[in-house]
Order: sequence, then structure tokens, then C-alpha cells
Amino acid sequence: MPERMGHEGAARPRVVVVGGGFGGLEVVRALGRAPVDITLIDRQNHHCFQPLLYQVATAALSPADIAWPIRGIVGSRPNVTVLMAEVDAVDTAGRCVRTTAADIPYDVLVLATGATHSYFGHDEWSEAAPGLKRVEDATEIRRRVLIAFERAELVSDPAERARLMTFVLVGGGPTGVEMAGAIAELARHALPLDFHHIDPRRARIVLVEAGPRILAAFPEHLSAYAKRALEKMGVEVRTGVPVTACDESGVTLAEERLPAATIIWAAGVVASPAARWLGVESDRAGRVPVEADLSVPGHPEIFAIGDTATRKQDGKPIPGIAPAAKQMGRYVGRRIAARAAGEPETGPFVYRHQGDLATIGRKAAVVKLGRLELRGFLGWVFWSVVHVYFLIGTRNRLSVALSWGWNYLTFQRGARLITETGPPVLRRRQKEG
Amino acid sequence: MPERMGHEGAARPRVVVVGGGFGGLEVVRALGRAPVDITLIDRQNHHCFQPLLYQVATAALSPADIAWPIRGIVGSRPNVTVLMAEVDAVDTAGRCVRTTAADIPYDVLVLATGATHSYFGHDEWSEAAPGLKRVEDATEIRRRVLIAFERAELVSDPAERARLMTFVLVGGGPTGVEMAGAIAELARHALPLDFHHIDPRRARIVLVEAGPRILAAFPEHLSAYAKRALEKMGVEVRTGVPVTACDESGVTLAEERLPAATIIWAAGVVASPAARWLGVESDRAGRVPVEADLSVPGHPEIFAIGDTATRKQDGKPIPGIAPAAKQMGRYVGRRIAARAAGEPETGPFVYRHQGDLATIGRKAAVVKLGRLELRGFLGWVFWSVVHVYFLIGTRNRLSVALSWGWNYLTFQRGARLITETGPPVLRRRQKEG
Repeated sequence: MPERMGHEGAARPRVVVVGGGFGGLEVVRALGRAPVDITLIDRQNHHCFQPLLYQVATAALSPADIAWPIRGIVGSRPNVTVLMAEVDAVDTAGRCVRTTAADIPYDVLVLATGATHSYFGHDEWSEAAPGLKRVEDATEIRRRVLIAFERAELVSDPAERARLMTFVLVGGGPTGVEMAGAIAELARHALPLDFHHIDPRRARIVLVEAGPRILAAFPEHLSAYAKRALEKMGVEVRTGVPVTACDESGVTLAEERLPAATIIWAAGVVASPAARWLGVESDRAGRVPVEADLSVPGHPEIFAIGDTATRKQDGKPIPGIAPAAKQMGRYVGRRIAARAAGEPETGPFVYRHQGDLATIGRKAAVVKLGRLELRGFLGWVFWSVVHVYFLIGTRNRLSVALSWGWNYLTFQRGARLITETGPPVLRRRQKEG
Repeated sequence: MPERMGHEGAARPRVVVVGGGFGGLEVVRALGRAPVDITLIDRQNHHCFQPLLYQVATAALSPADIAWPIRGIVGSRPNVTVLMAEVDAVDTAGRCVRTTAADIPYDVLVLATGATHSYFGHDEWSEAAPGLKRVEDATEIRRRVLIAFERAELVSDPAERARLMTFVLVGGGPTGVEMAGAIAELARHALPLDFHHIDPRRARIVLVEAGPRILAAFPEHLSAYAKRALEKMGVEVRTGVPVTACDESGVTLAEERLPAATIIWAAGVVASPAARWLGVESDRAGRVPVEADLSVPGHPEIFAIGDTATRKQDGKPIPGIAPAAKQMGRYVGRRIAARAAGEPETGPFVYRHQGDLATIGRKAAVVKLGRLELRGFLGWVFWSVVHVYFLIGTRNRLSVALSWGWNYLTFQRGARLITETGPPVLRRRQKEG
């Protein structure tokens, strides 16, 4: 490592932020020009706008529309060093983060490492039922969905064809609902003319929720509306049904076997291994319980935010959603800045729930903001505006607005590409060999 | 297979086109509403606009900007069946194409399978020096280029850092020239502010050409202009230098060893195995010599076009470029349509060379159209307009125009994403395990 990496002139506090998601970026933003040296560590070079990942997975948007290089966002700040590396461990005694690239000493550490899918102890399901957390997940799911229709076009066996044209979404939260609606539109609007031996409109899309209703975070009547809207689009909504098995050939719902070529996991999440790094107690989902100032118990110099942390407010856990992660990031950033400036400490963190949004499809969404409730077309317009607004970068806003306008007018999907996974060079040589 | 696949009511001639590139698509277009049943076979689901692949490889455009689902282009035609499959062999006696999906009988066969990179008998170089033919190649090269800067930011050893910041383009044709210019701009304009320990502007970009000059298809003075323009952008242009070795650590030019982390192959191409399928003689580059009507000697029912075929006109071979492939495709399509309609046969194929274009970078390109010669900014504008015009789909035209306008004004690159190769699901499990 260049010595520079250790932040020479270390009179300035060294702040290390792990994770370039909504929470981590907000910490860096909130620190602004504070007299600290910041190192932002992420294993990927880009920030991914997860709320729209499902649109990449369903060929409506391109990865570059919803992902932005972290260096492009914060790299130009003189007091910010961006490090693309994986964290192996944290030496809390020596105050040092061990990464695949180098050991990064810190005075203050912020863990914003997010969450990944939880298969509730059935990690062997992950291959058959990928989840949707990263750009690579989205392009892999896009490949599977499009390939399923290509294969269905080729087979003559009706049972196999039915299996290929069955898509199961596990989990009735916003992601599951949005994926179900998006796949339904893909099948019903974008693809029908393209195939001669199958009718994509007859694709079977099943949304499975173990709980009593979908979109449990919303009021009951909005959940009911979402269910009706999905069913109108031809999606089967199955509530109160647990997934008991899951493999390449399909899923088992309680006792019933459902043959399906494409299964997408939108059920549980589990926090990244941050708790293990610190050697502290974590909750069932691997999240670190934090103090009122979001610091880790016994470590006032370490903060955990977003999906990495768990904290109750008014008896209810703060939800694992982007706005919560951003609020936590802003709070921690300001707190660190205040400390560095020798200003009085701020009060405890208070989460303000702004509301919930979920889109069901073209012209249908549910919105709950305090007293305001929107659904249908209005909700959909509101949802679109909000998401375009929160995208990073004017270019992405323009590009996404263009894609959505285009998809809306033409029902086409621009990003319907099946690209191979694995190094193409190797593949070609295998083929030639 | 569904029986339908065999084209019931086979009174209509069955035309099978292998390859959804410029040539193959043009055949289908030219056949129009002719009374024939067409099956278009491609191993990929999308047509790729190869002239702009280098912009995906250098993070200026997204794959979906320059690739379009083949079904979306021709799939809606009632007399066209699109088949995503790989061709294993052609049974010329039984008039049947054997594919991974099914055996497709034909009355007329058109082979438009294009070319891949040729390493002149050194296939072992392909891993260290990938070429640029498919979308996957472009995203893989993009990954390598961006990763090289990330690694350079981390290493302290000056020699290794220099190796990581050295980019070698092998081959001084349009692709090599365009890649060299695009990487130079990426390093000099898009990245400098993003890194603190390296200065991307000091990246070493070397364009290697074995022949006496780059852009050999152009008049000498335009080649000279291109060389000067590249050198002004900081690209080293080395002509008359053969590559004698190539591996992960660098390249050997004649006797000189050049350590380089990123090597891109833009030198030779070799035709796809079509000649082997037919069991006919092919030239050194594997291309099938064709008759005046582009049919394969001894097989009036089989046509070979584009990079799959070789034919001399006025003593000079018809160049392996997109316009030539399109002209051949149009000719063959019309000829087949005429036959089917019982109209008199058309005359022999005559290639009309429309000209040559190559862009060197922002505001610099060389254009030679008959007597018209353009260079610099004018050439660049002309080049841009032509390429946007030839893109398939209004949406792609809008999207590319937006990206270019944006890149031009801001020097930013929207698609600077490093995504992993290989199934992410597996990777995550490996990491967790």
C-alpha cells in the first residue's frame, strides 16, 4: 500500500465507512467538509439503487441506469478515499479494518454493510431461487426469465412447457409484488408477438406469501387493492402458504408441488457478517443491536446503520428500508462532524417514517404517506416521480425517464438481452476447442 | 419439437438463415412478404451493433443501447420463426440444419454466421487478450479496464502500478484505433478526479500494428492524421511491430517485453465454422469462396454471406465490413424472393463500396466516402450521425444520442460498472461458505 493510504497527517480523525449503499453514502455526504479523513470501502465499485433492481431483472432498465460508480459520487472530495475491497475482519482492539487490499486504521468506524437474502437455513435453495440484491442478481434473473420463454418455444411436451412458463415469486413484500407485476407485463405486453409456438400471455405467475396478506407494511385495504390489481393482471396470489422445498424443477408449497423453471426469492433477508467481525451479540437476522446514538454497545467509536443495525422505537423495530438507512447515515455523519468540530453532542437518533410505496405495474401502485393514501394511476405517477427524483445523477434520471416513457407508450422492453454468465473468452475457447 | 417447427404446408419453400447479424437480418428484411417460410437461427437472442461495441467496452454506452432482441426485430412477422440455438452441423445431402434445439429442414440455406477473433494459431493468447465481437466481450473488457485502475490505486510497487496502468491494443484497424482513443479519453477525462493515489492521465496506452500504418483501408494521409490525433491524445502508436508473445503479465513486441495488465485483441478474424459444416474448401481465414450469385460451389441452394464468405471483385476481396454483409444479405434475400415468385433470376452480386469511417475520439474521426473526405470535428459529427441512424430502434437512437450528448458535455461515463462474471448466486455462497 502507498503510505498515503494510512492518511498521513493523522491529526485529523480517520473515519472509515464500510458500505457504499444508501446509509454509507449518506454518512459521507453528511460529513461534508468536516475536518476528518474518510475512507469509504465497498466490494463493488458502484452504488446500486436497489428499489429499481427489479426493473433491470425484468428488462425495463439497464444496469447503468440504476447503478453509479461510487468514485463518481464521492471520489472527487479531497478528504474521501474510495477503496474497492472486501472486509475480512475488524480489529476492534487495534482499531483497524482488515481488507483484501490493505489494513485500514480508524478512529471512528461506520458499518453500513447492508443485508443479503436469507433462506431460513436452506442455503441450498439459493441456486434454484436467486434473490435480488445486486446488479449481478438482476442480470442473472433477467437471463433466467427470458431463457425460460425461449426454451418453452422449443419444447413439445406440454407439461415441460407449462413448467418453463411458470414463474414463482417467494415473498409478498414490495420486491415480490413488483417483480410479479413486472413479469406479468413482460409476458402480456412485451413478448406476445415475438413467439409463434407459445402464447406468453398464458405464462403462470405465482406470488407466494407465508403471512396472511401481501404488503403487510400497508393498511389492510391497500393490501387488498394490490391483491386485486395483481389478479387482474393474471398473477396468482397465494397467501398463508409457506415454501417447504425448492429446487431446479420447482417449489413445494406446504404439501403442494408446483413445477416451475424460474423461482425468485424475495422473502427473508439476513444482515452482512458485521456482527461477527465485531464479535458482538446479534439478533436472529444477524443485525447488531445499537444504542440510542446508533453506536455499538461498548464501542462508542463504532456505529452500525441501515440493515446492519437493529433498534426499536416506540416498541416497533425501525424498518429495513432505504429512507431509514439514509436517516441513520445522516445522523451518524452529523454526529461525527460535531465531535470533530468539538461541538456539543447531538441527541439520540429519532426515525421519522415518511411512508411506504409499492408499484404493482403499469398505472397501478399503492402509496401511504402519513394520512395521504394513493392508489392506481395517481399512485403510479407519484411512485415514478419519487423514484426518478431519488436516482443519483441527472443522466440516470433522464435515461430512466426516457426508458419508462418509451416502455409506457410502446409496451416494449429495451433491455431484453440474454447474456452469458461466466467469462466469454473461456466459453468461446471451450466451444472452439 | 412442436410439429409446427417443421413448417407444415411445406409447399412454400423453407428458407433457413443462420446468424442474426447485419447480413442475416438483411436477408429476412429483403424477403419481406415473399411466399416462403423463414427460420432465423442464432445462438444469441439479440442482434449486436458491433461497430459500437467498443463504446460498451469503454463504459460510454450500455449493452442494451447497442443490442436488440432478434424477436423484437423480425419475430412479429407471420412467416418468420426465430430459433435461439447453436448449429452443430449441416446435412447438405438431407438438406437439414442440425442444432442444439432441433433439426431444421431447408430448401434454401443462408449462412451468415460471421467471424470471431483469430490469434494466428495462438489460441492460448485469447484469455490474456480478449477480442471484441459480442456483448459479453465488451462487458468483460470494461471490467478489466476499470479493475486495472482500481488495482493501480492500491499497489505501492511502482513497476506493478505501471503495468496495471498500461493498456495494449493489438491491431491498428478501426476497432483498435477506436478502443485506443476511447480508453485515452476515459483515463484523461472521466477518471482523473476519482483517484487520489494514481493519476489516470498518466495511463500508458499503446496501439500496436504489425503493418506499416494504422487504418490501412484509408488513404495514407488520413492514416497519418489518425496517428497524429491519437498521439495528441497520449496514445503510443507502434507500427511495423508484430506481437510475438502474450500472457497475463504483458506482451512481447518482436524482441521487446511490454508489461501490461490489460491487452485487447483487435487484430485478425477467422470465419465461423460454416465451411467445416459444409465440408468445402475455405481460405486461410476459414471463409467460403462463393460464386457470382454468392452461392456455395456445387450447392445453388446454399448461400454464404458477410464474413462467412470470400469473393474477389476487380481483383480485390470484398471487405469484411457491415455494409458489405448488408448488401450481400439484400441481394440474396431478393434472389430467393424472385425464385419463389418464379421471376427471372437477378444478375450477379456487385459490391458497392460506400466508404470507410473510423472515429479516433471526441471531435476526431476520419471519413472517406468516394471523393468526400472528412476529418476532425466534422468527421466526428458525420460519424456520430451515421451510427445513430443505423442503430435499430428509435429507443436505442434516443438513448445513444442522450448518452453521447451527456458524455460530450460532462466528460462523464455513465456505464462505469464493474460487475462480476460468473453466476452471482454461486459466488455469494462461496463467499459466505
